[in-house]
Amino acid sequence: MNYTFSNRIASLQPSIIREILKASSGQNVIPFSAGNPAPETFPIEAIRTFTQSILEQDPVTALQYGITEGYVPLRAALQQHLEQNFNTGKPSDQLFIVSGAQQGIELACKVLCNEGDTIICESPSFIGSLNSFRASGAKLAGVPMETDGMDIDKLEHALQTEPNVKMIYVIPSFQNPTGVTTSLEKRQAIYALAKKYGVMILEDNPYGELRFKGEDVPTIKSMDEDGLVIYVGSFSKILSAGLRVGFVQAPHEVVEKMVVAKQGEDVHTAMLPQILAHRFMTEYDYAGHINLIRDVYLRKATLMMDKLQEHLGDAVTYTRPDGGLFLWCDLPAHVPMVDYAKTAAAQGVAVVPGNAFLVNEQDPCNAIRLNFSTPSDEQIAKGVEILGQVLRNSF
Amino acid sequence: MNYTFSNRIASLQPSIIREILKASSGQNVIPFSAGNPAPETFPIEAIRTFTQSILEQDPVTALQYGITEGYVPLRAALQQHLEQNFNTGKPSDQLFIVSGAQQGIELACKVLCNEGDTIICESPSFIGSLNSFRASGAKLAGVPMETDGMDIDKLEHALQTEPNVKMIYVIPSFQNPTGVTTSLEKRQAIYALAKKYGVMILEDNPYGELRFKGEDVPTIKSMDEDGLVIYVGSFSKILSAGLRVGFVQAPHEVVEKMVVAKQGEDVHTAMLPQILAHRFMTEYDYAGHINLIRDVYLRKATLMMDKLQEHLGDAVTYTRPDGGLFLWCDLPAHVPMVDYAKTAAAQGVAVVPGNAFLVNEQDPCNAIRLNFSTPSDEQIAKGVEILGQVLRNSF
Repeated sequence: MNYTFSNRIASLQPSIIREILKASSGQNVIPFSAGNPAPETFPIEAIRTFTQSILEQDPVTALQYGITEGYVPLRAALQQHLEQNFNTGKPSDQLFIVSGAQQGIELACKVLCNEGDTIICESPSFIGSLNSFRASGAKLAGVPMETDGMDIDKLEHALQTEPNVKMIYVIPSFQNPTGVTTSLEKRQAIYALAKKYGVMILEDNPYGELRFKGEDVPTIKSMDEDGLVIYVGSFSKILSAGLRVGFVQAPHEVVEKMVVAKQGEDVHTAMLPQILAHRFMTEYDYAGHINLIRDVYLRKATLMMDKLQEHLGDAVTYTRPDGGLFLWCDLPAHVPMVDYAKTAAAQGVAVVPGNAFLVNEQDPCNAIRLNFSTPSDEQIAKGVEILGQVLRNSF
Repeated sequence: MNYTFSNRIASLQPSIIREILKASSGQNVIPFSAGNPAPETFPIEAIRTFTQSILEQDPVTALQYGITEGYVPLRAALQQHLEQNFNTGKPSDQLFIVSGAQQGIELACKVLCNEGDTIICESPSFIGSLNSFRASGAKLAGVPMETDGMDIDKLEHALQTEPNVKMIYVIPSFQNPTGVTTSLEKRQAIYALAKKYGVMILEDNPYGELRFKGEDVPTIKSMDEDGLVIYVGSFSKILSAGLRVGFVQAPHEVVEKMVVAKQGEDVHTAMLPQILAHRFMTEYDYAGHINLIRDVYLRKATLMMDKLQEHLGDAVTYTRPDGGLFLWCDLPAHVPMVDYAKTAAAQGVAVVPGNAFLVNEQDPCNAIRLNFSTPSDEQIAKGVEILGQVLRNSF
């Protein structure tokens, strides 16, 4: 049989990151390429205890079908937490549980965009979201990232000139891949432009609680007087990535449609992980655990920046993130970036070529993304040293 | 803000079944409306032991990101199991893990169908699949079910006359909602027609191992010499529905595209549930457990049919399933079915109006779907008695 695939899928390639992750799994490669949370931040003992208790006290709820909106006590706890910590959630908003933030992102696109409609994205941006939008048949328009967020003039230009814009997709805090945090002024400007042009904002905040330096900046959702913002969060970086639990807070008309779409995708998110997330929120030292994670990432990020200074010195420039998992490193203009990444991989260090994150992969890009959460301290020291050797010896 | 939703989502309504399930949850209603596996079939003790052992021995694998294709040992065990028990899987096939069979069904549609393409479905059929196809923008063409499967002449007529048919969707064993098992002859005929007209078959087999009477009929996938069949299965009815683990076996070109689409939906299926499913397959008396479930469902189905005979006698006709969770009951011609279902609900018995499962909900239908897996024996006896009273007293 000769297979003919749908237009939206036919042109889609597997995510470069997932492929690199697969290729390097189980091998002796230093993983600056992944986006995995540090395994030492998983509260394993608590998960063990809670799981045992859940399966003792109410196994049937954990093992039977649940409702699509998600485990009611978890939704209640999250709503309260978001209100207290991020000042989000109006009476007109609703919260529901998704199978990781990725599903929230995909559902937002599915309910808002017809094939051919435009989503405005930061460029570079998270490749998982870009590919998800592409698989839904949406057209992407990239707005360049600056050191304090999107270029606002170019954003307005895109809103004026791109056809059928339905959504602006942003990761305002410790962005993946750049590590950039969008300033308060730019958050306000993005909100004002969305309102002016009548489009929705998809605010993706998976790293929101992982600030290890500086002061919190208000979420765009906290400014949402007009019901424009779909806010997506996740337990992947604070509890466990493998449990696949995320959440969406959005105006209830939008949530209603997203829930119907979710029914058709996976009926509901696995129950045991949802109940575990609830226990973690309500019976654990949540704040203390977040502080522990922040300490780990501050240490690792600082170490990586120190080593970059030591081994690559003034040859490269890189972002200095205040949180999250990534930094973005611009290579010298004369160094061909993809060749550099390939040579580094051959020397045992996996990095992701920056163009993987562009809306148009062919656009010029001389940066690589470096992840500091996955590697051990020893791997960070050793890996950056190798990156320096590769730069000096091969280019 | 006035929200404008995508065309594919705007017209979609929440699944009637999920809404009924929500409305009746926590209430004192006899649940003939759900599709839940009997909770007494969950191997709770084993799940408890396995979970503890997984979180002792290899917690990081259970809690960290995994690859989109799924947990490798589970895929290997499943492949062997399917080959031995269902005679499926050619060298050109591949198997991957999904977040419940529902996701496999949705992904098949996403990768094969453009908006407006046609999927041929049994009518009635599983509403979750029908709604998932609708949410993808596909057009549905229903082929009436007979007591031994689809009307084959009408299937060929649909293949000749419907525009851009991409897929035939079938549940050949103990179909939801009718309980009908498609005969070997009709399975062969469906396969031959798919081959003749160059379309794929989506074979949904969630109840495949739940035969409690009669002899197994070969799967359509076992006849797949030409790479036409996407086979979808699930752990929901044999291990736990709430864990959301299913699988797809299909030609590797098709699986490759489905995996890319899955990346954009939920990255991967939750790891702990996948590892649990693997332990269940390899370290538990799987065959003995399946036999236990079969005994429970044989007892419940027999009880429901006996009580229908006793209380509704010759006034109704109903299917006599050899497995699965459902039977399909035709009311007398003079009884308005939706009114009957409403009256029964008011008397404390929830049933699903049959038209919910039709490709065109407006088509004439005088049947209700009855589920025998969820209610207790006492509820079955009492509930059917009430159904008889409602029929005699109100109509």
